Amino acid sequence: MEYKFSNRVQNLKPSAIREIFKYASDPQVVSLSAGNPSPEAFPINEIREISKKIFEENPIGALQYSISEGYPNLRETLRDYMKKNHNAVTDEDDILITTGAQQIMDLATKALVNEGDVIITESPSFIGSLNTFRSYNAKLVGVPMDMDGMNLDALENALRTNPNTKFIYTIPNFQNPSGITMSLEKRKAVYNLALKYGVLILEDNPYGDLRYSGEYIPCIKSFDTEGIVIYAGSMSKVISPGIRVAYTVAPKPIFQKMVVCKQGNDVHTNVWSQMVCNEFMTKYDYEGHLEKLRSIYSKKAQYMMELLDEYLVPLGITYAPITGGLFTMCTLPDYIDMPNFCKQAVLNKVCVVPGNAFLTDENEECHTFRVNFSTPTDQQLKKGIMLLAETAKKYIK
Amino acid sequence: MEYKFSNRVQNLKPSAIREIFKYASDPQVVSLSAGNPSPEAFPINEIREISKKIFEENPIGALQYSISEGYPNLRETLRDYMKKNHNAVTDEDDILITTGAQQIMDLATKALVNEGDVIITESPSFIGSLNTFRSYNAKLVGVPMDMDGMNLDALENALRTNPNTKFIYTIPNFQNPSGITMSLEKRKAVYNLALKYGVLILEDNPYGDLRYSGEYIPCIKSFDTEGIVIYAGSMSKVISPGIRVAYTVAPKPIFQKMVVCKQGNDVHTNVWSQMVCNEFMTKYDYEGHLEKLRSIYSKKAQYMMELLDEYLVPLGITYAPITGGLFTMCTLPDYIDMPNFCKQAVLNKVCVVPGNAFLTDENEECHTFRVNFSTPTDQQLKKGIMLLAETAKKYIK
Repeated sequence: MEYKFSNRVQNLKPSAIREIFKYASDPQVVSLSAGNPSPEAFPINEIREISKKIFEENPIGALQYSISEGYPNLRETLRDYMKKNHNAVTDEDDILITTGAQQIMDLATKALVNEGDVIITESPSFIGSLNTFRSYNAKLVGVPMDMDGMNLDALENALRTNPNTKFIYTIPNFQNPSGITMSLEKRKAVYNLALKYGVLILEDNPYGDLRYSGEYIPCIKSFDTEGIVIYAGSMSKVISPGIRVAYTVAPKPIFQKMVVCKQGNDVHTNVWSQMVCNEFMTKYDYEGHLEKLRSIYSKKAQYMMELLDEYLVPLGITYAPITGGLFTMCTLPDYIDMPNFCKQAVLNKVCVVPGNAFLTDENEECHTFRVNFSTPTDQQLKKGIMLLAETAKKYIK
Repeated sequence: MEYKFSNRVQNLKPSAIREIFKYASDPQVVSLSAGNPSPEAFPINEIREISKKIFEENPIGALQYSISEGYPNLRETLRDYMKKNHNAVTDEDDILITTGAQQIMDLATKALVNEGDVIITESPSFIGSLNTFRSYNAKLVGVPMDMDGMNLDALENALRTNPNTKFIYTIPNFQNPSGITMSLEKRKAVYNLALKYGVLILEDNPYGDLRYSGEYIPCIKSFDTEGIVIYAGSMSKVISPGIRVAYTVAPKPIFQKMVVCKQGNDVHTNVWSQMVCNEFMTKYDYEGHLEKLRSIYSKKAQYMMELLDEYLVPLGITYAPITGGLFTMCTLPDYIDMPNFCKQAVLNKVCVVPGNAFLTDENEECHTFRVNFSTPTDQQLKKGIMLLAETAKKYIK
């Protein structure tokens, strides 16, 4: 039979990154392409202990059907956390637990965006989100990044020329893939532009708790007096991605539509994993755990920057200084063909993600590639960067 | 701010059943409205033991990101199971693990159905699936049920008059809500009609392993030589719904598109729960567990039928004999107003689901209501049915 697919997915390709995982799974290849937390970052003993307790004290609660909104205790805990740590939830908002933050992108798009409507995103941006938006036949309009976040002129131009824009998608902290953090001034300016043009903001903050240097910057949701910001938080980088738990703080009418969409999507999120998150956040030293993660990753980030300075910068390759998160973006000299460089790198046994994978238009000229420092060991990091340098040398004029 | 939602969800309402849960959660009300497995059906000790082992032996594997297709060992196990128990997987098919079977409905619709395309379903049918189809702006065409499944004339008429039909959705075993099982002849006829009109079949089989009487009937997927059947299996009724694990057996090109959609939906399913299912199916007496479930539920089904015979049948209320699954559908005498009866029943402290909730057109005239026998205790069952009889007596002419 000849299968006819919907016009949503006909041209949808598997995520370039997940495809690259296939090379990366070759044990001979040093992978700098993943975005996985470091294995040493998982609270294994605590999760083991909590699971034991759950299946001793409340097994039926964990195994039975539950409600779409999420495990009530976890919703309360996250309300407190968002209030205390970010001042980013009001009585006009409600909290929905989702099966990872990817599902927040799915539910928000489903609830808000008609086919052909525009979503404005940073360009580059997280490929997983871009692909979800594409899967609803949204039109993506990319806004280039300055070193302090979205270029505001380009953003206003995009808003002015696309009256059917539904929301602006942004990752303000340690953006994936660029590593860039949006300044407070820019956050306020983006909020005001959204208000001016009557569009919503989808603020994605998976790395917010992973700051290694510089001052905390309030999230956009914290100055959302008008109810235009949907905030996406995630447990993937701070507890575990395999358990698939995230949460959105959204104005109640949007929350309600997202709940209905969630019913049709997967009914509710795995209950055990919601209980694990709640117990871990309330009965253990969660702040201490975050402190430990920042200690692990800031050392890795520091080491990564030393390696980049030593091996790549002398070859004319630049990078965005790492202040948090799991990535940085390197920029090749103009005369090096980036896609070709990435291919040669893989053949040379080191894997990075070509920067155009993150663009709203993949065919745009692009000289960047993304490197991750959270997954590899120090030894692998060093080997990987040295292999990249070896690859780059072949191109040096 | 005035929120504008997508035209997909503007008219989408929360599932009537999940709304009814709110009444049902009143401890004073006997709920015959749920579809939850019996608490005694969960393999609690085994899951506790398996979890302990997972977090001792392979914690990183359970907590790290995984692949969208699903935990490879579980996919293998399910291939064996589908081969051995149902002869319903070929080399042309692949198996995708999903976050509950609801997600299979979502992914299949997303991958195959354009807005305005038709999905033909049994009417009544499972409201969760109908709402997912609606959330993609699919047009639902309902086919009435005979006692041995879909009415074939109505099905062919629906196929003939709706050339933009993408698939036929059916629950052939112990259908939710009707309790009806499709005969072998009808399964073959439905398959041949689908072939004739060039449409796919989405075969949903959550209750297949819960047969209490009569002979096993092969699933439609088992005679799918042409690659037109997408099969949906689920762990919700045989292991646990709270863990959210299901699986689809689909022709490879469809599988591949569904994997891409799953990436954008929730990246992958909770890994711990996939590992739990795999360990339970391979290292424990899974067949014995299913035998135990059938024993629990067939006793409950038997008791339910005795109660219906004793209290409701004498009042002119009929029901479909229970041969498997978790439900039966009762039919009121024509002169009783069903929606009013269901309201009075709730006021009288017993909760059932009005039959029109399951229709493709909720406004159709309807005299049925669904009752569940898996969740209540025997005592609650008896009390509930007696309260229904008490309610009905007020209407008796």
